[in-house]
Amino acid sequence: MGTTLGELAVRFGLELAGDPTLLVTGVATLQSARPGTISFLANPRYRRHLAATRASAVVLDAATAASCPVAALVSSNPYAAYARIAQVLHPEPVAPAGIHPSAVVDAGAEVASDASVGPLAVVEAGATVAARAAVGPGCHLMRGARVGPDSRLVARVTVYPGVVLGGRCVVHAGAVLGADGFGFASDRDGYVKVPQVGGLRIGDDVDIGANTTIDRGAIEDTVIEDGVKLDNLVQVGHNVRIGAHTVVAGCVGISGSTTIGKRCMIGGAVGLAGHLELGDDIVVTGYSLVTRSLRGPGIYSSGMPAVPAAEWRRTVARLRRLPGIERRIALLEGREPGDETGEEEG
Amino acid sequence: MGTTLGELAVRFGLELAGDPTLLVTGVATLQSARPGTISFLANPRYRRHLAATRASAVVLDAATAASCPVAALVSSNPYAAYARIAQVLHPEPVAPAGIHPSAVVDAGAEVASDASVGPLAVVEAGATVAARAAVGPGCHLMRGARVGPDSRLVARVTVYPGVVLGGRCVVHAGAVLGADGFGFASDRDGYVKVPQVGGLRIGDDVDIGANTTIDRGAIEDTVIEDGVKLDNLVQVGHNVRIGAHTVVAGCVGISGSTTIGKRCMIGGAVGLAGHLELGDDIVVTGYSLVTRSLRGPGIYSSGMPAVPAAEWRRTVARLRRLPGIERRIALLEGREPGDETGEEEG
Amino acid sequence: MGTTLGELAVRFGLELAGDPTLLVTGVATLQSARPGTISFLANPRYRRHLAATRASAVVLDAATAASCPVAALVSSNPYAAYARIAQVLHPEPVAPAGIHPSAVVDAGAEVASDASVGPLAVVEAGATVAARAAVGPGCHLMRGARVGPDSRLVARVTVYPGVVLGGRCVVHAGAVLGADGFGFASDRDGYVKVPQVGGLRIGDDVDIGANTTIDRGAIEDTVIEDGVKLDNLVQVGHNVRIGAHTVVAGCVGISGSTTIGKRCMIGGAVGLAGHLELGDDIVVTGYSLVTRSLRGPGIYSSGMPAVPAAEWRRTVARLRRLPGIERRIALLEGREPGDETGEEEG
Repeated sequence: MGTTLGELAVRFGLELAGDPTLLVTGVATLQSARPGTISFLANPRYRRHLAATRASAVVLDAATAASCPVAALVSSNPYAAYARIAQVLHPEPVAPAGIHPSAVVDAGAEVASDASVGPLAVVEAGATVAARAAVGPGCHLMRGARVGPDSRLVARVTVYPGVVLGGRCVVHAGAVLGADGFGFASDRDGYVKVPQVGGLRIGDDVDIGANTTIDRGAIEDTVIEDGVKLDNLVQVGHNVRIGAHTVVAGCVGISGSTTIGKRCMIGGAVGLAGHLELGDDIVVTGYSLVTRSLRGPGIYSSGMPAVPAAEWRRTVARLRRLPGIERRIALLEGREPGDETGEEEG
Repeated sequence: MGTTLGELAVRFGLELAGDPTLLVTGVATLQSARPGTISFLANPRYRRHLAATRASAVVLDAATAASCPVAALVSSNPYAAYARIAQVLHPEPVAPAGIHPSAVVDAGAEVASDASVGPLAVVEAGATVAARAAVGPGCHLMRGARVGPDSRLVARVTVYPGVVLGGRCVVHAGAVLGADGFGFASDRDGYVKVPQVGGLRIGDDVDIGANTTIDRGAIEDTVIEDGVKLDNLVQVGHNVRIGAHTVVAGCVGISGSTTIGKRCMIGGAVGLAGHLELGDDIVVTGYSLVTRSLRGPGIYSSGMPAVPAAEWRRTVARLRRLPGIERRIALLEGREPGDETGEEEG
Repeated sequence: MGTTLGELAVRFGLELAGDPTLLVTGVATLQSARPGTISFLANPRYRRHLAATRASAVVLDAATAASCPVAALVSSNPYAAYARIAQVLHPEPVAPAGIHPSAVVDAGAEVASDASVGPLAVVEAGATVAARAAVGPGCHLMRGARVGPDSRLVARVTVYPGVVLGGRCVVHAGAVLGADGFGFASDRDGYVKVPQVGGLRIGDDVDIGANTTIDRGAIEDTVIEDGVKLDNLVQVGHNVRIGAHTVVAGCVGISGSTTIGKRCMIGGAVGLAGHLELGDDIVVTGYSLVTRSLRGPGIYSSGMPAVPAAEWRRTVARLRRLPGIERRIALLEGREPGDETGEEEG
């Protein structure tokens, strides 16, 4: 167990300053590291911990390598290099191939011989589990659902009929993929359910957090492109499309039929109204509400930072007095109030 | 498979302009439709797609029927008519009656002979599953829980003790019905749990989205009236009452003991404080916070739309300067600052 | 069944004005109470219901005891006293000791002889279930997960590898404890997964709501201290630390590496940015966004109360005109606009 610094340097194309035969067996923070571990320095705020680290080696960039007191693995992107090294030192456990005897797998399902179906999982007719994929305990693939090669449904993931999940995806516990979109037609005495006959297509290398929900489409498909990363408790409405390599933080709600471009970053708890188009490379900071389409690239915000409660109450009261303030200024200017401050709304 | 336009016209009382023997087998959007499918036009923004549609028929209103290039089914509410037609063409699969051998059903539970209990479901003593109801894979009805006729718990739904669910409800995966409300009494050295001995009563024709949670009452019951529609990841606190035919979009949080009237529409990610009363026919737009009772009908908002981040930072800074602005105006007016701009809060 | 007022008075050190042999069998609100039930008065808003109550006894404070028309149990903290009495009258059902035959328990797991593992639960190798703990139906303890004595996982709770849960905890259905934190290193063509090798440690007497998610740490541990109460649909990011006896309401999102002190109260739907430090005894009111560290004690807010939609649109429009307002004031003051109103941001 463990890997030498030399092996890591070669494997990931890193410059090594130090003993290539030194063995590391795990990762640690600069502060908590003990000999035998490897650490990293990517965020300048932690630079002050470098001098005293007891790690055997540190992954860092060329600018900080000179002041590294131990072996250095030098990368222009130390965080990504660290991530790859950590994957080597802390590999995901591989679920044993085969179908657990307690799983309920329909005779009409197709499970690759080297795939894994865990205890108490349910795989319905027409569902397929591709090579080396793992369907964890308590997961449920409804009829016709497809899990791509090397994907891993950790536990208790529900995949609705016909949903297609690509390869190398990771889906955490409690996620619900392809439930009905929220479609009801108002009628005389209530609502009529609008059947949600579209599907859900998820690309390769997508990560989906715990208890996140992604709805199927109303008529056409909801689409999550390759490399998208969704955190926990995210809600994705029907017919949404999320572009490749876009990252969505926790508690975000994306309303139906909204399209998000590639490489966007959507901060925590952001709300996106429906039927919008967001371009590529857009950042929306946490706790913002997006109500209109946005062209990328750009950074957008509307999150209001908390202040002492008494101050906030006064601010809210003053906001209500803004019309009066404008009138008073107009009077001071000798104008008719309302002249040029007409109700030009949003 | 499929239905003729004539049958649909008769069944739903629609006026037909076209060949009544024409067969349709599925639904499609105006743009993606192929012969054999039926589409609809309800939102004016899609009207431009009507002329080129390849659908066999379109459901639309009298005003647009004249310009329909194919067979027309005319309704004063085309979206509701479309919904009903789609239900005919895309029926929900019916779960087979009976108890799956892998389910764990207590001898003291009562399951109708034509009801369905899916694989790996758990039904405890005293729980009842009414006629034609379906308890999907991995669902769990605790002691005394009741599922009404024709209701469908899709998968992995947890129903706590004594919860009553009406008829024709649909509950999506991961929903939790009747967990303890959040009740803790502060004491010298922490909190004392307040037993949540109230129940949860859910009416008929209620739809509940994936991973939505509805708490049981503290002493009396939480109540969801007939025809309520809850989207995904909604949180309903203890002793809330939601009036008939109210619709609640995703990510909404409703605090304890708040009452919402009938036919309200609560937008996505709205927060409702506790102990409020909202009247009938109230609309709260997405991402708003409701802190006081509201009389209906009416539309209420406080969602702040995102703008470029630099602009937003300046806006926040200016909000902080509002007191100074009021002082400067008062000085210009020749008044003592603070005179009439006293701290009238909220 | 039932307890006498005398027994309750002695057990909880309450002063009794009334017949000590009177039997009560359940709790009720002042308004709905019938003879044989006990009620309480803690919130002054319900005092008007005291005179007409039909309860056999009421728990209240010395100031209101004089006007109590029935037997009175007097406490300086009537709500906490009521909570303890309700626990006696409405005890939690105790799950039967032993492992249900349908559960899948690895030979390498350790389950105390008086613990309970419910139907269709999964307990992996190296997991431990301590004395009198209950692992409910559909729960899943991954390898090495530890559940402390007297803790109760109600149903369908997923506990990831190595997570440690203390004693006397209650975890509601759908909670996910210890899933991977949201860590991805940006790279040339997308993101590299950063292995989340830290753990999750949860103290004693912690309550966790339905469908709440708490992530494991990236390198070091996420920590939930003793007595913390989390409501439903809360998201706790990696490496968060929540101090003892802090209460977090529903739909809150806590971003990674943020530390919250002891005895804080975080209102519903609050968002906390990452890498912050909140001191002890801080209250954040509902629907606020915290973007900087806060020293306690104190109350903080930024939730904007909803108003009629037309009024809100005008407020938003006026906010956009604030720069112009400042310019006009500067002109009236005879100054160069911009002089002292420079872009001092945030």
